[in-house]
Amino acid sequence: MAPVKVFGSAAFTNVARVLVCLEEVGAEYEIVDVDFHAREHKGPDHLARNPFGQVPAFQDGDLTLFQSRAISRYVLRKHRTDEVNLLREGDPRESALVDVWLDVEALSFDPAMHSVFYQHRVAPVLGGTPDEKIIGESVEKLRKVLDVYEARLSKHRYLAGDFPSLVDLSHFPETHYFMGMPYAAVFDAYPRVRAWLEELFDRPAVKKVISLMAKDFN
Amino acid sequence: MAPVKVFGSAAFTNVARVLVCLEEVGAEYEIVDVDFHAREHKGPDHLARNPFGQVPAFQDGDLTLFQSRAISRYVLRKHRTDEVNLLREGDPRESALVDVWLDVEALSFDPAMHSVFYQHRVAPVLGGTPDEKIIGESVEKLRKVLDVYEARLSKHRYLAGDFPSLVDLSHFPETHYFMGMPYAAVFDAYPRVRAWLEELFDRPAVKKVISLMAKDFN
Repeated sequence: MAPVKVFGSAAFTNVARVLVCLEEVGAEYEIVDVDFHAREHKGPDHLARNPFGQVPAFQDGDLTLFQSRAISRYVLRKHRTDEVNLLREGDPRESALVDVWLDVEALSFDPAMHSVFYQHRVAPVLGGTPDEKIIGESVEKLRKVLDVYEARLSKHRYLAGDFPSLVDLSHFPETHYFMGMPYAAVFDAYPRVRAWLEELFDRPAVKKVISLMAKDFN
Repeated sequence: MAPVKVFGSAAFTNVARVLVCLEEVGAEYEIVDVDFHAREHKGPDHLARNPFGQVPAFQDGDLTLFQSRAISRYVLRKHRTDEVNLLREGDPRESALVDVWLDVEALSFDPAMHSVFYQHRVAPVLGGTPDEKIIGESVEKLRKVLDVYEARLSKHRYLAGDFPSLVDLSHFPETHYFMGMPYAAVFDAYPRVRAWLEELFDRPAVKKVISLMAKDFN
C-alpha cells in the first residue's frame, strides 16, 4: 500500500495536527512540500486538492481531503484499533464528548492562540508591527477558555474525559509556538492545564512532530 | 423514553442548527428557554450544561452536551437508519467529505455570515452603529467561500457530494437571516448556490424550524 501524502510543511500548525495523528497510529506517510514563494499553493494542482489554496491537503489513493481536523478524523478512523481509538468511535457518549471539545478547540482556543501568533510572529515578517490591542483581546479570550479547561481538568484527566483523544492532540501545534512567546506566562495561573500539557508534550508522537516542525522552520 | 431537551431559543442560529437535525430524524424534543435578560445563561444550572454560558445546551437522560455541531452529530448518529444517514457513517470516504465541508462551514462560511449579522442587526440593538468596514471585509470573505461552493456545486448536487448531509443543513440558520439583509444580493452571482439553497429551504424540517425561529424572534 502506497503511503498517504500530506501536502504542506510541518511548520504549519494545521499540517502538524495531521502529522501527529499519523504518528500516533503509526501510519506511513510522505510530506510533500508546497512552495509558497513560487505561489504553488495557488496553482491548479494544489487548488484541485484544496480549493482554498491552503495547507494541508491530503491524499490516500484517489481520495483527496483538506481541513486538518477532517483529515485527522479520517486517519484516526482508518487506523482505529481496540487499543488506539482516539475518536472513541463505537461509544456514543465518549465520541460525542470528543466532538464537543474538538469544537471548543477549533472555534475558541485556536482562534485566540492563532491571533496572538499572527500579530507577534507573522505581522513583523510582512513588514507591519504587532497590534498590541488585538494581542491583549486575544489573550483575554484565551484566559476565558483556560478558565473552563482548568475546571474541566479538575474532574477529568483529559479534556474529553478520562481518555486521551484527538482533542488533546489537536491543541499541541498552536500551544507549542505560543510557549515560545512572551505571553506564555498566561498559563502560569492554570496548574491543571500545565500538567495536562506536560503529559501531552511527553507523547512520542508529539515529540516527533515537534522535531519536524523545527527542521522546517528555516 | 423522555424527549431530549434543547436549552435556548430557536431564534439563535446555533440552536436552530440542532433543531433542524432533530426534525430531520423525527426525534421528540423539548425546547427549554434560557432567560438572557435574567442572566440565566450565566447562572450555575446553565453553566453546568454549557461552561461558556452560551446556547445551545442539550440533555439526553444523564448525558449533557454543548456545541451545536457536536450535538447535531450526536443526534444524527443516534437516529441513523439506512434511509436517513446524514453523517454518512459507515462509508469512510463520504463521512470524511462530510467532515471536510462541515469544517468549511464552521470555520469559513459561518464566521463571515455571522460577522455581517452582528454588525447589521446586533450592534444597533446594543446602542452602536454597524461598522461598514468590517461588513465589507466579511462580505469579501463570504464571496471567496461562495466561489468555492459554486465550483463544488457544479460537480455535485450537495456540498459533501451527491447526497444531502449535515453540511447542507448546517448552512441554513445563518443564511436564513442573511437573506433578509441588504447584502443578500451577493448571492445573485452564484446560480448553483442559489439552486442548492432553494432545495435546502424547501425541506420540511427547515420550514418547520424557520417557523419556530420567527415565533421566537419577538
